[in-house]
Order: sequence, then structure tokens, then C-alpha cells
Amino acid sequence: MPDYSSPVYTALKANCPSAWQAYTRHEFVLGMQDGSLPREAFHAYLKQDYLFLIHFSRAWAMAVVKSDRVEEMRTAASMVHALIVEEMKLHIEVCAGIGVSETDLAILPEEPECLAYTRFVMDAGLRGDLLDLLVALLPCVLGYGEIGDALSKALTPGSNHPYRDWIEAYSGEEYGGPSYQAAALLETVAARLIGPDVQQSPRWPDLCHLFETATRLEADFWSMGLRMTKA
Amino acid sequence: MPDYSSPVYTALKANCPSAWQAYTRHEFVLGMQDGSLPREAFHAYLKQDYLFLIHFSRAWAMAVVKSDRVEEMRTAASMVHALIVEEMKLHIEVCAGIGVSETDLAILPEEPECLAYTRFVMDAGLRGDLLDLLVALLPCVLGYGEIGDALSKALTPGSNHPYRDWIEAYSGEEYGGPSYQAAALLETVAARLIGPDVQQSPRWPDLCHLFETATRLEADFWSMGLRMTKA
Amino acid sequence: MPDYSSPVYTALKANCPSAWQAYTRHEFVLGMQDGSLPREAFHAYLKQDYLFLIHFSRAWAMAVVKSDRVEEMRTAASMVHALIVEEMKLHIEVCAGIGVSETDLAILPEEPECLAYTRFVMDAGLRGDLLDLLVALLPCVLGYGEIGDALSKALTPGSNHPYRDWIEAYSGEEYGGPSYQAAALLETVAARLIGPDVQQSPRWPDLCHLFETATRLEADFWSMGLRMTKA
Amino acid sequence: MPDYSSPVYTALKANCPSAWQAYTRHEFVLGMQDGSLPREAFHAYLKQDYLFLIHFSRAWAMAVVKSDRVEEMRTAASMVHALIVEEMKLHIEVCAGIGVSETDLAILPEEPECLAYTRFVMDAGLRGDLLDLLVALLPCVLGYGEIGDALSKALTPGSNHPYRDWIEAYSGEEYGGPSYQAAALLETVAARLIGPDVQQSPRWPDLCHLFETATRLEADFWSMGLRMTKA
Repeated sequence: MPDYSSPVYTALKANCPSAWQAYTRHEFVLGMQDGSLPREAFHAYLKQDYLFLIHFSRAWAMAVVKSDRVEEMRTAASMVHALIVEEMKLHIEVCAGIGVSETDLAILPEEPECLAYTRFVMDAGLRGDLLDLLVALLPCVLGYGEIGDALSKALTPGSNHPYRDWIEAYSGEEYGGPSYQAAALLETVAARLIGPDVQQSPRWPDLCHLFETATRLEADFWSMGLRMTKA
Repeated sequence: MPDYSSPVYTALKANCPSAWQAYTRHEFVLGMQDGSLPREAFHAYLKQDYLFLIHFSRAWAMAVVKSDRVEEMRTAASMVHALIVEEMKLHIEVCAGIGVSETDLAILPEEPECLAYTRFVMDAGLRGDLLDLLVALLPCVLGYGEIGDALSKALTPGSNHPYRDWIEAYSGEEYGGPSYQAAALLETVAARLIGPDVQQSPRWPDLCHLFETATRLEADFWSMGLRMTKA
Repeated sequence: MPDYSSPVYTALKANCPSAWQAYTRHEFVLGMQDGSLPREAFHAYLKQDYLFLIHFSRAWAMAVVKSDRVEEMRTAASMVHALIVEEMKLHIEVCAGIGVSETDLAILPEEPECLAYTRFVMDAGLRGDLLDLLVALLPCVLGYGEIGDALSKALTPGSNHPYRDWIEAYSGEEYGGPSYQAAALLETVAARLIGPDVQQSPRWPDLCHLFETATRLEADFWSMGLRMTKA
Repeated sequence: MPDYSSPVYTALKANCPSAWQAYTRHEFVLGMQDGSLPREAFHAYLKQDYLFLIHFSRAWAMAVVKSDRVEEMRTAASMVHALIVEEMKLHIEVCAGIGVSETDLAILPEEPECLAYTRFVMDAGLRGDLLDLLVALLPCVLGYGEIGDALSKALTPGSNHPYRDWIEAYSGEEYGGPSYQAAALLETVAARLIGPDVQQSPRWPDLCHLFETATRLEADFWSMGLRMTKA
């Protein structure tokens, strides 16, 4: 498992092991890993994930608004760029491959699980400071990297795996690069706002609570993929 | 049914009749009406509604931030006051009556349905203008008034109804007063930002979409009360 | 001098003694104290102060949005109420007394000094957390209390002083009450977000910088009153 | 004069001809044009303009937060990128050329004129919708293009003009490209939120007021350059 060189992130995860497990080893994730996930569940998820990306990019733009150092702005702005230019394009291409156009995506109704997580993150930023916002953003950014790496290791090289494209998009260098930057930003901002001993800060329980809530909402997002095909 | 003298509100409801019905005539509401709603479902709902009120007050405070006329500020500020001083106190008292202290409420985990609606409203305000925020707030403010009035009419005078207190809190003068003010504010702000013919504005479909989404999330909030007792 | 029982506030002031002096003992303030301030300078100031109050109320509403505890919300909401219901009414009455109606005030052009301070405070809140917002708000809230008390002590009882009304409005119990609450809120929020040793926090230099900038902009606001009558 | 194909922008300028003239033909601008502007006034301006860019980038990031269509987000995000990656780097290089390092810039005190304009823009975005924010942003984006083009035309080719670098940075293709995009975004967003007849909207007077205030604050920014060298 990558630790992204971030003690704060590691401590946040260690504080909610079962929620983290429920998210990163969710039935949906295991179904992608062994290829048993029904295609329609994946498509239902993918289309909502496009809406998710829109609001996630807005939340990273909020991180630019909330930055107090030029270096922080640069990192946050590069995340916005990566999300809007790279990751969103990937979704549009994959959706086009299954017959869902960008116009279809624009009028797609947003599911409650997508609304809950994305708006929670934005409000965490509005209500608190840059650190609160980052703590709410990172379960997604870094959790996806962990999931991608775990699934990538389990992948037989050259095999005809139905979720190879997704797994490769969220593992390795290309995804890892921005993620490492985001983890480094968490460390920098925690040091600027709290100091070296983050876990001794009176803010620590609230930061843990934010992180765990965001993690729970991520698990709900996977469950949504399954729910939408059962319904 | 009261129309709160608001043609904009009436048109917004008329645009999503089935979502409005699903919210205002929800199984949970019908259970309050005939008294068949299990007490534990009501308590589960009420405790989450306390958390809801916290974020709803924050959203009305956002309406003060977003006001562009002194009269708008005054109305929005009086809503914040009514919510924090009156309505929140009512919840604290009722919860105390069932053995749940204010300290218990402060550490209560927030359910996804509560997160989804409250953060959606706040983000509607951050993203758009005061009109967008009001349109997202009003399904709650005015819908509760409609539900309260409907249940009040169905109430046999003097009967020992298990939900009489709740029904009386959301019907009649005391609740109706601030609600009328909120409906009047919607009209004023729509006129200021759009003009007399709101439904001909290019914004109309987006406003309808906001209103319908908030209405759907309100119905989910009732469902939460039932879900939490089934689980 | 009242210390409002707030060690954090005291330390913030002690960090910028000359800026604090330039604000609280400004030529405009000394002119109010000895009654030599030209009436037209006072009126120019007072009309801008009405616009100031609008944005200051919005900034305190932002403090409600940014609160993370119910008690914090209550204090911030009571400040919004006091500003909009009490203090703004006072300005409207005094302005009416000099022939300036509420309609005149509504179309008054806002001077750069008013724009600079009020929007700086709001952005401090948007960018940072509740503590940043409070630190930017307090030079006004508590500084006015200090100025009011100092001028009140210098006032000969029963004398026909041209600025008696203003001085009495910002001294004594009525103004002091909400101010004490605001100072207590600063302490509570600093303790919640930083802990007991605020000056050892890595945030301390940034908080001092915010406070000093707000103090400088307050002094500029007095200078505006003089500038507008010279022009 | 370029019209950037934007009727809304043209109408906004036409509404405040003297404020627009006071900004685009300011004594500071004329001094750059004929080369008579003292070098130290230019340097004082340039260093503040670096601080300005930080907050201007934050305001364009706010435009991403406030976008309601993916195309709007893309344009706003590309402005953030251009400002942070291109324009800020240019300032850092020019400042380095006059012996002012990035570290010096980071601790530079921000002048009231810089505070006033940048925070006003941000608050216009927080208070209103994306259109309000754009109207407050554009006097800078498009006004600089107009000034750059005017000064470029007055420039003798090959001459050793002291402000050639600045003039070339704000004229021609490289600056014009993003500016055209910003002007096109204004048109798109005005059409989405108001419709084809923007000047008949009840919002028009408020939009004109926002634009004129931002224009006045831009003129103050030039005056700051002169003030700082006179002081």
C-alpha cells in the first residue's frame, strides 16, 4: 500500500479502520477486482462519477480560493486542471464508448449519494479552512489510488480483464503523480495551520470526524452503483 | 392548501407534482396524520432534524450574506433568529422529553439523507445567487407549513393524538408567519433578479431543477426516519 | 481600558501597538473627543458607516455559516440581530435627523475605504476559518468599545457635547454586552481550533497580520471622514 | 479598440464613459505610453500587481466554483491556469530583474487599493452569481487588453521604449486569446441567466453599478502607483 509519504493521512486512516475497509474493500471494488461486477452496475457508477467529477473540480477550485500561500494555489490549481482536462475527458470517452454522449451526461439526474458526498466536501471547505477541505477531499483522491494499486497488483498481466482500463487509470505513475502532490499539500497545510504534532491538536477529533464522514460517503457511492442496478 | 401569495412558489410546485406529492404525502407524513407512525421512527427523525436545523440555520445565514437589499437581509436574519432561538429550542425540549440531552445531540452521527439535503442547499447558495438559495430552501420552509396545515385539519379537536405537538408546531399562525415572509422574499427577489415573468426566463428550467431536487431530498429525509427503525 | 477578559485579543493588540494607536487615537477620534470635529466630517463618516454596517452584518452572518458548534452559532446570530435591528436603526434615525432618508442611504456611493475594510473581512472568512474571520471582525467591534469608553470618561457630565449621542452609543452596558460576547467567542474559538497557547501556534503570525491589516483599514475609515470634507 | 465581440461588455463600458476613461487613460497609463512614468512608480505598481494576481487567481477559481455548465468551468479553469502559470511567472521574473525576489514578494505589505479591488471582486462573486463575478472581473481582464493595444499602437517599432515589455505582454495574440475567451464567457453566462436582452433586465442597473465600481477601483490602483512614489 502506498503511504504517499503523509503521516497525517496515515493517522486519519488509522483512526477509522472499519470505515476505510468498508470503502476500499467494498463489494463493488471486489467485483471490479475479480471481474464479477455486472457491467450495468459499472456503467451506472461511471455516469454518476462524471457528475461527481464536476463537483469535485469545483471543490478543488475552492481549495485555490482558500489557499494562503502561492505554492498551495499552484498545487490546487494543477489538481483542477488534471480533473477537468484529463480525468473528465477520460469519462467522456468511456461513456461515449457505451453510447452515452456528453449531452446525455449533461442532463443526467444526480443520485443522492453523489449529491451527499460532493456537497459535503464543498461545505467542509466553506465552513472551515483549507485543511478541513483537504481532509474531506483526500479519501477520494488517495483512496482511489490505493484501490487502483491494489487491483493493479491483483491483475494478471496481459489478461483480458473487463475493468483493466479503469484499474490502469487509477494506478501507476499517471494517477499517482497528482495524488502524491495532494498528499504533500495536506502535510504542508497541516504544518502551517497546526504545527508538527497534528494529533495533539484540539482540532484532531474534528478532522478525524470529517475524514471518516467523507470515507463513509465514498462507500455509499460504491453502494449506489449496486443499488441502481438492483432497482 | 395555503398558497402563501407566491405565484413563483406555486409554479415551482406545479412543475414537479409527483415529487411534491411524494414529499408532502409521504408514508411517514400519513403515519403522523393517522397516528400509526411508530414512536421510534419519529424519534429517529426528530434527532436528525435537530442536526438538520443547525445546517438549515447556516443556510439562512448564507441568505443574509447573499442579500443585496437591506429589507432582504432583515427577513433572512429574522429566519436565522426564528430557527436558532425558537425552533431549535423546541427540538431540544422534545428530545429532552425522550431522554436525549443536548450533549447527546451534539455527538449524534449525521445520516446521509441529512447530509445530502442540507449541504445541497448550502452549495446551491454558494454556486448561484440569492434566488437559487431561496428556491432550494423553500421546499422545506413552505412544505412543512403545507404538511402542518393538512394534518391540523385532519386532527379531531381535543383528541389524544400522539403527534399533536408536532402538528401544532408546524401549523397555524406561529409557523405561518415566518413562512409567509419567506414566500414574500422569494417573490421580491425573483422580481429583482428576473422581472415579472419568471417562467419565461432562461433560468426557469434550472430553478425548477433546483426545486425538484430539494423536494426529492426532503422525501428522502422522511424515508430516513422509516429506514432507521427498519435497520 | 476594558480588556474584555480576552487574552487573545490583548495579545493581538500588543503585537501592533502603533497601528492600534493610529486607529483608536486617530485625529478623527480626538476631534470627537474635544468636540472640534467638523459636523460635515462626522456626517460623511456616519453615512458611510451605514453602508459599513450592511456589510459588517453580512460578515457576522458569515460567522454563523462558519460556526461548528451550536453555541458559536447563537453568539454570531445574536450579533447579526444586534447589528441589523439595533445599530442599523440608530444610524437610520441619526441620518434622518440630518435630512438623509433611508432611500438616500440606499443609493449612496460607497467609498473605497468602506469597500476595502468590509470586503477584506468577508474574504478573510471565506479564505480561512471562523477564527480568521473573528480576528478580522474584532478590531471594529472591540476597538469601538475602547474608543467609546475612552471618550465617555473624558466627557463632562451634563455638558452639551456635540458627539454625546455617538459616545454613549458605543460605551457602557448596551454596547459592552454584545462586545463581551464577541470577545468570549474569540477565546472559545481560539481554544477549539488552536488550544491554550495561541501565541505558540504556527498560525500566530498570520493571525497578527490579519488583525493589523484590519486595524489599518479601520484607521483609513476615520481618515475617509476627514478626506471627504477636505475634497 | 477591440470590442471582443461582446455586446454586454460594450454596453457596460458605454454606461460609465468617464470612469472608463479615468481608468484606461489614467495619468499612469499615459506615463507608460510616452515613457515619462518614473521607474520607481512602475516598480511600486508591479510589486502590488503581483499580490493582485494572487487574489485575482483566487477570484477566477471562485468562477470555477460558481460555474453551472462544464464549458463555463473549462474557461474559468483555463484563466486560473493562465494567471498562475503564465502571468504570475512573468511578474516574478520582472521583479527578480529589479532585485525583488519571490521571498520579498511573499512578505510585501498589501496596499489598501489592492485590498479594495481584489476583495470587492471576490465578494461580488460570493454575494451574487457567476454573472456578477464576471462583471466585476472584466474591467481588469479586458481593460488591460484595451490599454495594451492602445499603447502598442502608439509604440514606434524597434524603439528603445522603457515600458515595451509590459506593453507587449498586454497586447497582441498571447494576451488577447484568453481575454476573448473571458468576453465570450460573459456573453454565454449573461444569455444563460438573463436572455438576449440584458439591458432590459431588472438586473441591468446593478450590473452597471458593479462594473463601474470595479472600474473606479482599477483607476485607484493606477493612482496607488503614483501615490507610493510621492509619499
